[in-house]
Amino acid sequence: MKFTAHLKRKGRGMQLNNQPGLYITFEGGEACGKTTQIELTQNWLRDLGYQLTVSREPGGTELGQQLRNLILHGPKDIDPRCEVLLYLADRAYHVATKIRPALEAGQVVVQDRYFDSAVAYQGAARKLGVSEVRDLNLWAVEGLIPEITFLLDIDPRVSMQRRAGATDRIEEEPSAFHIKVREQYLALAAAEPQRFHVLNASDSIEELQAQIREVLLGALEKKTGLLHNISEGGSHNLSEDAQ
Amino acid sequence: MKFTAHLKRKGRGMQLNNQPGLYITFEGGEACGKTTQIELTQNWLRDLGYQLTVSREPGGTELGQQLRNLILHGPKDIDPRCEVLLYLADRAYHVATKIRPALEAGQVVVQDRYFDSAVAYQGAARKLGVSEVRDLNLWAVEGLIPEITFLLDIDPRVSMQRRAGATDRIEEEPSAFHIKVREQYLALAAAEPQRFHVLNASDSIEELQAQIREVLLGALEKKTGLLHNISEGGSHNLSEDAQ
Repeated sequence: MKFTAHLKRKGRGMQLNNQPGLYITFEGGEACGKTTQIELTQNWLRDLGYQLTVSREPGGTELGQQLRNLILHGPKDIDPRCEVLLYLADRAYHVATKIRPALEAGQVVVQDRYFDSAVAYQGAARKLGVSEVRDLNLWAVEGLIPEITFLLDIDPRVSMQRRAGATDRIEEEPSAFHIKVREQYLALAAAEPQRFHVLNASDSIEELQAQIREVLLGALEKKTGLLHNISEGGSHNLSEDAQ
Repeated sequence: MKFTAHLKRKGRGMQLNNQPGLYITFEGGEACGKTTQIELTQNWLRDLGYQLTVSREPGGTELGQQLRNLILHGPKDIDPRCEVLLYLADRAYHVATKIRPALEAGQVVVQDRYFDSAVAYQGAARKLGVSEVRDLNLWAVEGLIPEITFLLDIDPRVSMQRRAGATDRIEEEPSAFHIKVREQYLALAAAEPQRFHVLNASDSIEELQAQIREVLLGALEKKTGLLHNISEGGSHNLSEDAQ
């Protein structure tokens, strides 16, 4: 696609592994258990001594919170393109002011949702076009792609039963919507098997966390050439460790 | 560019003259006198009996007002891409919920700023790329282009002197910024001479208004096959008139 090509021409595309830090994202449908796994993962990484930035999209900044509020509780007639663009504005700001600086400083970034969410939710499920939504997103973030993306895959019929009472606009969508989201997530994972790690969200919390830790230990070792553990103590910054 | 090409393939690009209504936009740098001319123009059109929608970007809707507020008075570290996307979100919503319905209903739409502002301010002056910003905008509005755009051209040194005391973030930019905005506006006008009517904003209010009315009378006559004047009375809807 043109935008991607343009970014690549300018040498700013596909910044995979170019940053000193490690960029990890979590993706999945509603009630897939992301929140629990992110919390366990961040506690574990912190215990290992890594300098962490934990964030989320939308809403990882104050501006993002305001935008998230507009999207979820604003006018009911927000059209799909407007919604895509509000998410993109949040993402552009979040990456420029919080994520990119953290990665450049050698931190491990753990993030709840990134542009794969946009592709799955807006590109596929809302029929705006997968490649267009992906190109728009790559433009917004200047081509920054995570090194590891965990997809907590869940059958929408199962996740329906998991949900609490509170709902917002997106969670009110019918199940067909969530089936398309899941299909698109799986397609994205199939297209980028190096980056995506598909986990069965029906596994137990402990089983899921064990699988996540195994992947991360491999990535951290590869990144720094060092396998840190609690007994070493101290605080690890990936850019310093790699020197 | 890819996005434009994509829109064209789907038959949704360049909707010039496809709508029953007439779409008129006003463009120009700070303190060019747009507000005065828009007010005179809308009063005149209303007196002629046309059904009017008068709007502005950013801020033509309640959502737009909130976004405009974020852009002008939000965080100081809003990066250029985030700013582009917030303007785009406003534009997408405004066009989808207000402008397109008015044009489909055969109304005359008079609008203060549209995507030419984005191209001039963000594409050129903030160096994000003219064609990229234009493509993003055409995606956001599904290719809707005005039939008439008045550019009130003014030397930034002259407009500097016209300004009142109150300033916002954009008006604080140095004069070099405004010089680039003006150059890009003139380039856009040169590229689309059918749509753009460049007026010398240093002309008197009366002279400017006379030039605007002459252009509009021609366009309305062409659109409806009828030249309305006050003596006819009643309310004119372009789609009904054309039948």
